[in-house]
Amino acid sequence: MSIPSEDQRFGLARRVTLPRPLPLDGGGVLTPVEIGYETYGTLNADGSNAILITHALTGDQHVASVHPITGKPGWWTRMVGPGRPIDPARHFIVCANVIGSCMGSSGPATIDPATGTPWAMRFPVITLRDMVRAQAMLLDHLGVGTLQAVIGGSMGGMQVLEWAATFPDRVRSVVVIASAARHSAQNIAFHEVGRQAIMADPNWQGGCYYGTGDTPAAGLAVARMAAHITYLSEAGLTEKFGRRLQARDAKSFGFDADFQVESYLRHQGISFVERFDANSYLYITRAMDYFDLAEEHGGRLANAFQGTRTRFCVVSFDTDWLYPTAESRMIVHALNAAGAAVSFVELSSPFGHDAFLLDVPELNRVVDGFIRADES
Amino acid sequence: MSIPSEDQRFGLARRVTLPRPLPLDGGGVLTPVEIGYETYGTLNADGSNAILITHALTGDQHVASVHPITGKPGWWTRMVGPGRPIDPARHFIVCANVIGSCMGSSGPATIDPATGTPWAMRFPVITLRDMVRAQAMLLDHLGVGTLQAVIGGSMGGMQVLEWAATFPDRVRSVVVIASAARHSAQNIAFHEVGRQAIMADPNWQGGCYYGTGDTPAAGLAVARMAAHITYLSEAGLTEKFGRRLQARDAKSFGFDADFQVESYLRHQGISFVERFDANSYLYITRAMDYFDLAEEHGGRLANAFQGTRTRFCVVSFDTDWLYPTAESRMIVHALNAAGAAVSFVELSSPFGHDAFLLDVPELNRVVDGFIRADES
Repeated sequence: MSIPSEDQRFGLARRVTLPRPLPLDGGGVLTPVEIGYETYGTLNADGSNAILITHALTGDQHVASVHPITGKPGWWTRMVGPGRPIDPARHFIVCANVIGSCMGSSGPATIDPATGTPWAMRFPVITLRDMVRAQAMLLDHLGVGTLQAVIGGSMGGMQVLEWAATFPDRVRSVVVIASAARHSAQNIAFHEVGRQAIMADPNWQGGCYYGTGDTPAAGLAVARMAAHITYLSEAGLTEKFGRRLQARDAKSFGFDADFQVESYLRHQGISFVERFDANSYLYITRAMDYFDLAEEHGGRLANAFQGTRTRFCVVSFDTDWLYPTAESRMIVHALNAAGAAVSFVELSSPFGHDAFLLDVPELNRVVDGFIRADES
Repeated sequence: MSIPSEDQRFGLARRVTLPRPLPLDGGGVLTPVEIGYETYGTLNADGSNAILITHALTGDQHVASVHPITGKPGWWTRMVGPGRPIDPARHFIVCANVIGSCMGSSGPATIDPATGTPWAMRFPVITLRDMVRAQAMLLDHLGVGTLQAVIGGSMGGMQVLEWAATFPDRVRSVVVIASAARHSAQNIAFHEVGRQAIMADPNWQGGCYYGTGDTPAAGLAVARMAAHITYLSEAGLTEKFGRRLQARDAKSFGFDADFQVESYLRHQGISFVERFDANSYLYITRAMDYFDLAEEHGGRLANAFQGTRTRFCVVSFDTDWLYPTAESRMIVHALNAAGAAVSFVELSSPFGHDAFLLDVPELNRVVDGFIRADES
């Protein structure tokens, strides 16, 4: 298959400028639309083996290959790779950086050709549906018609739901993991804390920090720290750190990181700012907060799925308090009301929301079984 | 009763300089020890009707009287006042600003006489036990020997536990509400986010912002916003705000506060910085994170209460995820193991941790019954 107008800028993965502007939910269009993406495996002759992986808030297209900045392995090598449920030997796997992000797709850090400078806060506010429409254009470009499956966790799961609702005829099956059909008041509240932390940092400079030599790293680190707490369970934090002190083994009676959990959180904040753009964090959290699939369909979630022939698999984790099982149940009830084929399981894990990224063998079994059912 | 060496500085409530230095858990002493406090009612002839109210992280001595800065009513007028369970007609009620705070008691914002400038970060790191020892010195000063009761919620409840453990012969009964006997990893994590937000604010200036015309207001507001989420239940936030938009009634596709919950949180942050000192927030959160009553007693919580004759009442709220019922149960189990007289109740409330400050009639009935049992 020919892949036109590719380039390898920034040492990132593959990148394409889509041939058309993207109409946006907020009005107007985004143009040009650049998409950074990765693929693994080969599309088969009848084009029936394509699987799209959708990533979470701070994720990227490097689902199963080394991250070009951190040098770390792909973020979902437990799920995607040789011998894994999603296997390049059987599947043509596509993972695209969402628009608004900073790993090759159009976002606030990319150049607006109209001005020759980064978009910064002139980048349009986007929605999860906008992200998904951009992914559909990428698949057009790659010659993928119908997807065997779309699979994602957290914000990835929200995109999966948008895929099923927006392009029902292009997806045979979807897997929604640790996710929700809308952002709750508490979800919005935590994101707002993060945004305020970034915008309170004087180095944010109204978003125009590109090229100034300063970035709102301190604010972004605080945002990441606050968010990171919501990704872990209280019991998991207790098990992992409890009240254990750092190596110095005694309280300092000062403000150093005495407790291991403090040091861990600080590290999470500091390492995050090396790989992520603060403005992208603003835009993507905003898109998530705007997400309410029912609202987009007349206020009734079941309307989003009426008459669908897509098969659904919904997975939640019992210790996930960010998108608790009740949110998954709400999705399942709507799917039932819409007469959709749906299987649902709440898995037990000590890891909280992050469980979808971690070693939960049962998750792999569930996804493997669900994917293979479509192949037999 | 004569009240020596009082003054009315800063337009605050009553204030006293204690006659002796305060030895601190971290080593060294605090001197001078100034205490801002309020009293209501009159100590009876046999001195048997004194009740100490202990306040929470950002609370103060104005438990039942108007706050001198905000002009708002006292923070616990539902519990303390005429016709309330704690009633100045029957009780001599004392409430003192904790040391480390900023409402008249010695803290980082007060003047270190040795230098003539505010302590700032040279103020010693204190513990909850230090706070309680200072309160005991205040009671000495006020001529109060044994307390009929010590009552407090949240960090107030932790001080109550310290009172029972440190001065068992001075307290006939205690009420511990929505609290815990130690700070969990998640509790520490949220506090650390707040501290990092403050210290990341360039206006913090290493804590030496007094008199510079700048304060780390932005960082402190972010800290408050993050903490405030933990004070409310997810269901309470959903009920109060859900995904309702602000008056403009449509998404802005921008970064204004579109959702009511965003606007509410921003208001919580902004109004907090008008009444609270950022360095005090650092010191008091640190004291709370250091709190582990079992650790102070050989690693076994029951040891803290061995042989006590104090009566205990422990109250938790079913939607409190900051100090969940499991933490209260841990206290009750230790009290049972120590052979203490304890009554325990988990109350139902939609308000999360903040329930102890809000309209929960059942809480008033529980406290009223428990207090009166001592008076009959």
